[in-house]
Amino acid sequence: MRDWLGVAADVAEELRGDAAERDRRGEDPVAEVAALKDSGLLTVADWDAQRAVVRVVGAADANVGHLLGYHYLQVWRGGLFLDRDAAAARSAELHGQNLFWAGISNPLDAALQLTPVDGGYRVDGRKTFATGAAVADRLVVSATRVDTGGKLTFTLDARAEGVSRAGEWDNMGQRLTASGGVQLTDVLVPEAQVLGPADGTSPRLSLAAIGFQEALSQLHVAIAEGALAEAARYTRETTRPWFLSGVDSAAEDPYTLQTYGELVADVQAAGLLADRASALLRDASEAGTALTAGQRAETAAAISSAKVVSTRVVNHTTAKVFELCGARATASKHAFDRFWRNARTITLHDPVAYKAREVGAHFLTGQHAPFTGYS
Amino acid sequence: MRDWLGVAADVAEELRGDAAERDRRGEDPVAEVAALKDSGLLTVADWDAQRAVVRVVGAADANVGHLLGYHYLQVWRGGLFLDRDAAAARSAELHGQNLFWAGISNPLDAALQLTPVDGGYRVDGRKTFATGAAVADRLVVSATRVDTGGKLTFTLDARAEGVSRAGEWDNMGQRLTASGGVQLTDVLVPEAQVLGPADGTSPRLSLAAIGFQEALSQLHVAIAEGALAEAARYTRETTRPWFLSGVDSAAEDPYTLQTYGELVADVQAAGLLADRASALLRDASEAGTALTAGQRAETAAAISSAKVVSTRVVNHTTAKVFELCGARATASKHAFDRFWRNARTITLHDPVAYKAREVGAHFLTGQHAPFTGYS
Amino acid sequence: MRDWLGVAADVAEELRGDAAERDRRGEDPVAEVAALKDSGLLTVADWDAQRAVVRVVGAADANVGHLLGYHYLQVWRGGLFLDRDAAAARSAELHGQNLFWAGISNPLDAALQLTPVDGGYRVDGRKTFATGAAVADRLVVSATRVDTGGKLTFTLDARAEGVSRAGEWDNMGQRLTASGGVQLTDVLVPEAQVLGPADGTSPRLSLAAIGFQEALSQLHVAIAEGALAEAARYTRETTRPWFLSGVDSAAEDPYTLQTYGELVADVQAAGLLADRASALLRDASEAGTALTAGQRAETAAAISSAKVVSTRVVNHTTAKVFELCGARATASKHAFDRFWRNARTITLHDPVAYKAREVGAHFLTGQHAPFTGYS
Amino acid sequence: MRDWLGVAADVAEELRGDAAERDRRGEDPVAEVAALKDSGLLTVADWDAQRAVVRVVGAADANVGHLLGYHYLQVWRGGLFLDRDAAAARSAELHGQNLFWAGISNPLDAALQLTPVDGGYRVDGRKTFATGAAVADRLVVSATRVDTGGKLTFTLDARAEGVSRAGEWDNMGQRLTASGGVQLTDVLVPEAQVLGPADGTSPRLSLAAIGFQEALSQLHVAIAEGALAEAARYTRETTRPWFLSGVDSAAEDPYTLQTYGELVADVQAAGLLADRASALLRDASEAGTALTAGQRAETAAAISSAKVVSTRVVNHTTAKVFELCGARATASKHAFDRFWRNARTITLHDPVAYKAREVGAHFLTGQHAPFTGYS
Repeated sequence: MRDWLGVAADVAEELRGDAAERDRRGEDPVAEVAALKDSGLLTVADWDAQRAVVRVVGAADANVGHLLGYHYLQVWRGGLFLDRDAAAARSAELHGQNLFWAGISNPLDAALQLTPVDGGYRVDGRKTFATGAAVADRLVVSATRVDTGGKLTFTLDARAEGVSRAGEWDNMGQRLTASGGVQLTDVLVPEAQVLGPADGTSPRLSLAAIGFQEALSQLHVAIAEGALAEAARYTRETTRPWFLSGVDSAAEDPYTLQTYGELVADVQAAGLLADRASALLRDASEAGTALTAGQRAETAAAISSAKVVSTRVVNHTTAKVFELCGARATASKHAFDRFWRNARTITLHDPVAYKAREVGAHFLTGQHAPFTGYS
Repeated sequence: MRDWLGVAADVAEELRGDAAERDRRGEDPVAEVAALKDSGLLTVADWDAQRAVVRVVGAADANVGHLLGYHYLQVWRGGLFLDRDAAAARSAELHGQNLFWAGISNPLDAALQLTPVDGGYRVDGRKTFATGAAVADRLVVSATRVDTGGKLTFTLDARAEGVSRAGEWDNMGQRLTASGGVQLTDVLVPEAQVLGPADGTSPRLSLAAIGFQEALSQLHVAIAEGALAEAARYTRETTRPWFLSGVDSAAEDPYTLQTYGELVADVQAAGLLADRASALLRDASEAGTALTAGQRAETAAAISSAKVVSTRVVNHTTAKVFELCGARATASKHAFDRFWRNARTITLHDPVAYKAREVGAHFLTGQHAPFTGYS
Repeated sequence: MRDWLGVAADVAEELRGDAAERDRRGEDPVAEVAALKDSGLLTVADWDAQRAVVRVVGAADANVGHLLGYHYLQVWRGGLFLDRDAAAARSAELHGQNLFWAGISNPLDAALQLTPVDGGYRVDGRKTFATGAAVADRLVVSATRVDTGGKLTFTLDARAEGVSRAGEWDNMGQRLTASGGVQLTDVLVPEAQVLGPADGTSPRLSLAAIGFQEALSQLHVAIAEGALAEAARYTRETTRPWFLSGVDSAAEDPYTLQTYGELVADVQAAGLLADRASALLRDASEAGTALTAGQRAETAAAISSAKVVSTRVVNHTTAKVFELCGARATASKHAFDRFWRNARTITLHDPVAYKAREVGAHFLTGQHAPFTGYS
Repeated sequence: MRDWLGVAADVAEELRGDAAERDRRGEDPVAEVAALKDSGLLTVADWDAQRAVVRVVGAADANVGHLLGYHYLQVWRGGLFLDRDAAAARSAELHGQNLFWAGISNPLDAALQLTPVDGGYRVDGRKTFATGAAVADRLVVSATRVDTGGKLTFTLDARAEGVSRAGEWDNMGQRLTASGGVQLTDVLVPEAQVLGPADGTSPRLSLAAIGFQEALSQLHVAIAEGALAEAARYTRETTRPWFLSGVDSAAEDPYTLQTYGELVADVQAAGLLADRASALLRDASEAGTALTAGQRAETAAAISSAKVVSTRVVNHTTAKVFELCGARATASKHAFDRFWRNARTITLHDPVAYKAREVGAHFLTGQHAPFTGYS
């Protein structure tokens, strides 16, 4: 196995260099996806390595961490329609192609419509928040058959005829994730691209939804880690000691040290929780079709637990670091606020209060989270 | 007395309309200062009315609230060199002129230099963070005599020869406050513009420094109030209920209601603390030359107390409101992040940990805060 | 008017002396009520003076502060059946008698039953959480007529035949408040003791319920103030500086000072909010029968706001002060935990989450809190 | 290996049954130590099993968890004077004896004095906070030679002549840990009981101090887990739904569920951090004499990180659970406050602000924590 962490570190260092400038411009992440391809990171097939890579890349640029995490997720998600071994084979093959994958799946929008035609289907409709779709090679899509009402999941060539953008993505955070909408107009879905029926009662298929939640928690932690690293650099190199502090360097200020300690400890705790969630999801995935409702529920609870803690931690950390850097760190050229803007944006994916409620219900009465687009 | 609150509300409504757009452009607040002049708000001479007006205007646009609060402060600050009645007369006269005042006073920069010349002085040097100076009519400035080392405070015509900008103001928050640097090159200071010697041991003159702190606390509260008002509008009109909430409207979501309640209660508490600080400063100011070190210390402690609470509250509130609006509220067009960016920027004026320490020392041992540029 | 604050300070100083010891014994507050009578504090009729007195006494002994606050409340509550002037006259007369008042009113218990008899009624039933009733001279009671279903409020001699205890009060906090149950068995209620029908739709009568909430907030603040004062004494006199602190006295430790500052500022803010709530309730009370539903709703929201903040602050403060004193402050002889135990107990009077929700609903949509036993 | 978790669960269940009653009586933990002996838990030699056992037992009774954790620590600590294999052998032998070990080591007290005599030493002096010593079989002690000033560590029979108590242990929390003082008067220390010179510069020997910190973090987490479990039982079985909640059972209250979720997630995160700290300490211990200053510093930082988070979490959790149970849960018979009292007491072992500072300094500049009695 290549030294993927080393590769990720190199990519991260590159991204960090102009992250502020690219955030300001807010363009489509075309160059960023190209860089991922060049680096080989899109081909990482090992579960734990994927998570570690996302943390390193996401710390430097939350946008690219987001795209990369979702890429791994979309490839993995297709394998849920298979048993464990076939899923692993599919993953290896797809990763080997070094293509960039994204998805179209906002559960709160109306369903896309599938019309059976010769050799497959035609799909029509519109979805918002299709992170990465505009710069992807391949898409994973779900839609509802107009004839039977059944739901199918399939892949699409992202540049197929009839695939177009719907609405700009111009947001305060995660500006380079191309998370705008996608319009599908009479797009052909050859039968061979159908992954399978999206059976809403299957524990194994239900893992897709909590896979997104797991990926988000890793990303939250990555952003917090990135903010701390960037702040530490600034405190060491630039911040001046406060005239009442009685110390010669900002890096010796008692309040600064205490606050770093509290933030670092919290971020580490959140990171361990996210890693535990990821490990449980990996185990659930590897259980294949033997996955029980019970194991699925434990996994979901662990993932929601990580979401609750990492949401709090990343929002707090990315705001608090400013006190460790001082007033001059608010200059636009540093764009230090991008960490908070990215955190605040990504943590709104779905309301965290309901994730806490889910964890509480599981703890208090053993309740299994329902299978939804978010749990 | 005119209905200044009504006037302020009108100005605020106007500012609110394009606050997001103006924040994006980040230009000098020329039009904003003109609007303040047109409204008459620059002429408000009553202490409590000034504070109320700043809260209303600052809630709609923290930049303009900042400029306006500092304008009142600069006019008041000049009066500290006089006794109470003369100060009131000066304030009335200056406010009557409807000019916009700002200052040049960053205590962390090297002092400006005053060279005695016929009929007055020449002043030279550079100061950073000179909020509003670039768009002001009149400035309050302090500088050190090169011959005696004594420090004098004086006024300047902001467009006098030799006054120029030094460095752009391009920051993540408070973008329209023209808080860049000012260069003074051989600027004439006629003797008549000298307010007096900046005697560092006078309780009365020492009020200027804590006046800035008091103004900042009012501004913190204003920003928090503005964020809550804007969020409430969005929650009521735009946010969709979460599908697991079991209610028909976002405004009935149990978590949303609880969070609004917690934020509102905290902001009210911070507001009362800021108002108490303002009242004590007014009293200290009105004590004139009879002001004792003891009353000054009580006033300073109350102001720092307001700073500590309002700093926490405004940073928390402006971040948390996003959870009350939902993911779509992160679209750039709303620029909801401006509340947080403004809050995070303004609350870094000086490190809040040292303010807390000051409050603690006063409570624990009765210690008087030292007379510095920040306390 | 006597110097009630001075009297309260003397009573407080006396109570403070053996508060730890009396907390340990947990006996009925017979001596405490006697001390209140001796001091004259039971006779204070001025609204604002009552609140100030409760804060001073409650800081020294939360039990006695509780009893005293509720005593004022019960006398005031009876006046709600009258118009403003008659209420004031009644209050003056009752306070002049220097008797100790308590109530029997837990809204969550089944209603007491009133049976009409010659010259009045007989009342039967049982109520829990009847703070102070066991040591009171007079009681305010509500009960439901068995014939008409109407609810009446009346007074009772606390030592009348048929009044007995039901259940011990042995709790972790507020141990000296005699908050056990009361059993009423065939107790005579002469017609003259009937205050009036408890009309559930009258804004004026509905003030009673929020009066309890207001009293609790004042008590929360008092406990926090007491904990801070006691901790400060200990830090100054007993705590040793930490060996890594680099300072010679615990009162100079940077973290200790900062934490004091944060706690003090928060307690001040909570105090101002409680005082605002009290002032609004006083105004609502003085509005007499002209009180509108709107003013009642504003008053209720302000009271709930104070409850939300003071609940958070008193629980946090009474726990955090231990870090300002050090490990040896946990010795039983100091009983420093009584502040937290009292706070934690009293703040559970009713769930604060629902108070926050109420504040949120009022802010967001202007909703009036319903008239209940707790709002 | 026996099913130690099963054994621990049985012991815990037993302890839980009368934990409230035993807390009230506050006697020496004689029966508790006997129960540990009977169970065999004192003989567990596996590092990870020890930690797991402490968590289970400490959740039921923080006193016994404390005694047990320190017992493991004292046995392990003696092995630091040996290389890895000899240490393991010593540990196996000592654990096989099924004796209860404690220590006398408060670093803030004056050092004990060692006087060389024929065949060994005499030791004299007094130490406070000697947890468990009064009920121990064997003690680990450090003292300073009066002749050379060198420091030695040795074992003592806890019932040797000249060992006596000094001062009662009567505290608000951890009441059954026998943490009072010990007086040593002319106590014989045979040469064979000397473990070795306490070389203050040896990374390996320095592990003892951070071993205590690690044990405390595990205990913090155990207490938080115990409080959650006890609260959940109460919520499910006893708490009544709030009348405004609109649900039929307290276990469905939206705020209750959310709060459980937040607490559970936080406790899980703290637990993972404590486990990571324990694993790193195990690794450092197993590195034997090859342990470097660098690995020692990483280990210390991880332990302090766990201390910072677990301190916050256990204090918060044990206070907050009351809101999940309601007012009636404050009855003394439940003694629910023991979780908080235990937490608040144990977390004051040494000031957490300095632990945060240590973590911050390590993160910011790579600083190694100094070798002290607490780091």
